[in-house]
Amino acid sequence: VATNRTNYVTGLLLELPDDGRALHSRLTSAIKAAIVAGRLTSGHLLPPSRVLAADLGCSRWVVNEAYAQLAAEGHLQTLQGSGTRVAPVTAATREPGRPASSRPALVAPPVVADLRPGAPDVTNFPTAPWTRALQHVLTAADWSPPVFAPPQGVLRARQLIADYLGRVRGLPVEADEVLLTCGTSHGMAVAARVLAARGALRLAVEDPGWPRLHQVASAAGLRIEPVAVDTEGLNVDALRRTDTQVVLCAPAHQFPTGTVLSAARRRALLAWATECSAMIIEDDYDAEFRYDRRPVGALAGLDRDHVIYLGSTSKTLHPGLRLGWLVPPPELRRPMLDALDSSAAGPSSLDQLTFARLIDVGDYDRHLRRTRTAYRIRRDALVDALDRHPALHDCGPAHGVAAGLQLMFPLPHGRDDHTVAALLADRGIAVAPLSRYTVRPRPPALVMGYSRLTPTRAAWTADQLATTLADMEVDR
Amino acid sequence: VATNRTNYVTGLLLELPDDGRALHSRLTSAIKAAIVAGRLTSGHLLPPSRVLAADLGCSRWVVNEAYAQLAAEGHLQTLQGSGTRVAPVTAATREPGRPASSRPALVAPPVVADLRPGAPDVTNFPTAPWTRALQHVLTAADWSPPVFAPPQGVLRARQLIADYLGRVRGLPVEADEVLLTCGTSHGMAVAARVLAARGALRLAVEDPGWPRLHQVASAAGLRIEPVAVDTEGLNVDALRRTDTQVVLCAPAHQFPTGTVLSAARRRALLAWATECSAMIIEDDYDAEFRYDRRPVGALAGLDRDHVIYLGSTSKTLHPGLRLGWLVPPPELRRPMLDALDSSAAGPSSLDQLTFARLIDVGDYDRHLRRTRTAYRIRRDALVDALDRHPALHDCGPAHGVAAGLQLMFPLPHGRDDHTVAALLADRGIAVAPLSRYTVRPRPPALVMGYSRLTPTRAAWTADQLATTLADMEVDR
Repeated sequence: VATNRTNYVTGLLLELPDDGRALHSRLTSAIKAAIVAGRLTSGHLLPPSRVLAADLGCSRWVVNEAYAQLAAEGHLQTLQGSGTRVAPVTAATREPGRPASSRPALVAPPVVADLRPGAPDVTNFPTAPWTRALQHVLTAADWSPPVFAPPQGVLRARQLIADYLGRVRGLPVEADEVLLTCGTSHGMAVAARVLAARGALRLAVEDPGWPRLHQVASAAGLRIEPVAVDTEGLNVDALRRTDTQVVLCAPAHQFPTGTVLSAARRRALLAWATECSAMIIEDDYDAEFRYDRRPVGALAGLDRDHVIYLGSTSKTLHPGLRLGWLVPPPELRRPMLDALDSSAAGPSSLDQLTFARLIDVGDYDRHLRRTRTAYRIRRDALVDALDRHPALHDCGPAHGVAAGLQLMFPLPHGRDDHTVAALLADRGIAVAPLSRYTVRPRPPALVMGYSRLTPTRAAWTADQLATTLADMEVDR
Repeated sequence: VATNRTNYVTGLLLELPDDGRALHSRLTSAIKAAIVAGRLTSGHLLPPSRVLAADLGCSRWVVNEAYAQLAAEGHLQTLQGSGTRVAPVTAATREPGRPASSRPALVAPPVVADLRPGAPDVTNFPTAPWTRALQHVLTAADWSPPVFAPPQGVLRARQLIADYLGRVRGLPVEADEVLLTCGTSHGMAVAARVLAARGALRLAVEDPGWPRLHQVASAAGLRIEPVAVDTEGLNVDALRRTDTQVVLCAPAHQFPTGTVLSAARRRALLAWATECSAMIIEDDYDAEFRYDRRPVGALAGLDRDHVIYLGSTSKTLHPGLRLGWLVPPPELRRPMLDALDSSAAGPSSLDQLTFARLIDVGDYDRHLRRTRTAYRIRRDALVDALDRHPALHDCGPAHGVAAGLQLMFPLPHGRDDHTVAALLADRGIAVAPLSRYTVRPRPPALVMGYSRLTPTRAAWTADQLATTLADMEVDR
């Protein structure tokens, strides 16, 4: 069967003239053309990359690159354990366009392109590996979830997450230092309660920033103190002037500007914390997705005594999983564990162990590699569409594109980003105005999540934005 | 294959003389004898009850009763979807006895019989139905977990849990009235925070009671006010004298006395709440397990305005799932939802929907019926072993056996239940002294969870208790 499939796909290549492009581009075009022409239909199983590469006499990378490109475009679906298939024909693979009817809309228009930041493409959820891992947890005697689990989480899960943090985030910790939470917000709620009980009154936060964490800290009794973010990230001089003892920041990929905290600023921030005996809460929300080089290590890996580390699976697997971790400094471990226990909440032991098993068998790393490639392709498509659009020359360039799942796209001065976002919503494009995340006013911009955006739709989105801005110009 | 299996098991019956016992008892004995003799070995698949009943010319009930008895004793395993098999030979099916070696123990003795109250037999977890339900949630388009779920939980899950509460607990509610939590303790933490913010200073609790909920309420700022429990349940006259505005109680099966709140007391309690504009927090922790007749309906079903209802899957599925629900009175819905949101915690959307699917296809009801039968048999075995043991005539009788997963067994006056429990631990029996759950002193008793106790081990446990008490007598 594999050989027949290979021969068929190899045959497709022969139909395309050698136009001088790289082999992986030609392979991508050939497969796409076959899908569009209906010769490869929904559900069709493609040959394994190993087999096709051998048949084409090329490296496996070439085939993987083509498959990843087509998956990112929504033409293929790669399901771990069940191979690569032609995707069902859905709204995601059809060309977007004008609404079918020209009658005035009486209800909110449907979302054609969902660029809301803060979530991954959940259709990438590793269904087969996750189900397989759960099955193992529920049947293998040495993986049984304990009847009574400790409040910090099941030991085996903490061990594997600790290993992961050391290996991937440069944060060498023991299982006992890891507390499992219902995600970053829950970790923030626990940390804020402990800090407030120890006398903290205010929390310095990056402006702009992710408002949910501010809201949770406020509910725990901390007053929010905004500190400006510039091109190097959090402004540490401005932080010093606030005279706060605690700061929340996302050094690996600031939200929503996308800035990676510069090396000089990292040093300055840690120096501030040491001098003032202050605490840094590190929100490491999407550091797994770094596209141009290896992700920068966690700040907590450089100074365990002054950094409270927060991580989760919300951006890597599914926000609905509500599974995250909190690594407090050794001195705060006991009070944080007590506060976690008092919150009387935590993730399911079954989920903890299922995730641990996913790490243990290598499926989590495989999933991250696979999604990173898909997101890089989608990022490239959106950046290209926006920065090269002839009618968007007085916008941009796109910011914060080195990592993460969203970028910030500056609008011409004087435009109200809230209005632009509302007009785009009328066109079926869900996008966030920068003003949603700011305390103090900043130049207008859009925050665009590209995790669920196929390249075709990226070009269309740029067109719609150009048209919207032109219409606004006329209305002036 | 089914016929061969049937013929074989039918053949077993012929080997046993008709000793005048009921057919289901003879069938039970015949199968057990074959297992003990090694003629039916671990993993052997038994015929479906329908097939065997037809072959024996009896009702299916007879076969089901025999299978349930043997499953409760640990000889068979009934896995939904994969039939009934002979269980692996484990510590649970071997005869318990003296330690293999007579050398003095240098480490804590292993737990041979785990009678700690508060958890079900987690080896009964419906692995196949749960995995199947998760698979459906992850693949069926109309069951997809939403990217961003509301803080109260996914609508579809709340709908199915609302249906369940109306159908099984006599609590007719709408999906919007149900808030999903990480379990009863999380629900208590949320409720306590709201009540404290609205001026409540104290929480009346049943004495004895489940200390975890008191601990969580204390952490939210409420002072605990113990109220005596007598043979009819919570003493409402004593409650009136405390002058509190909020009470926590478990009307369906008080923990740990096992008392079912009498009809007169239910009326008195609701009258108190109405007169004093007070709130009742109903801990409906194990009401699904009522053995002699239909479970009494939830108190919240009688008065939606004065009862905050708490339920969970900890006793029916697994405490490690951390999946529960909170149904506040309409007036408190908004503040409770806000408090839940501020807690920044909740169960996984995937788990919510998996549980909902389990309800929707009837697997949850099937699981409850099946485990109820197993627990009834284990309860009967423990009650018989304790109440009929000739050397335990000055103890007992067992209390609170109508429902739930534990009973209370009174010890002779003057014995310290803490010491008895410690001596039993030395013999490999984990059991809780009543004094662990009391604020004010009460006559000594043991609280014994029987969910994980096979009948063989029940008799052995009674023997060990008798020996322990006799040894203490000698030491006096």
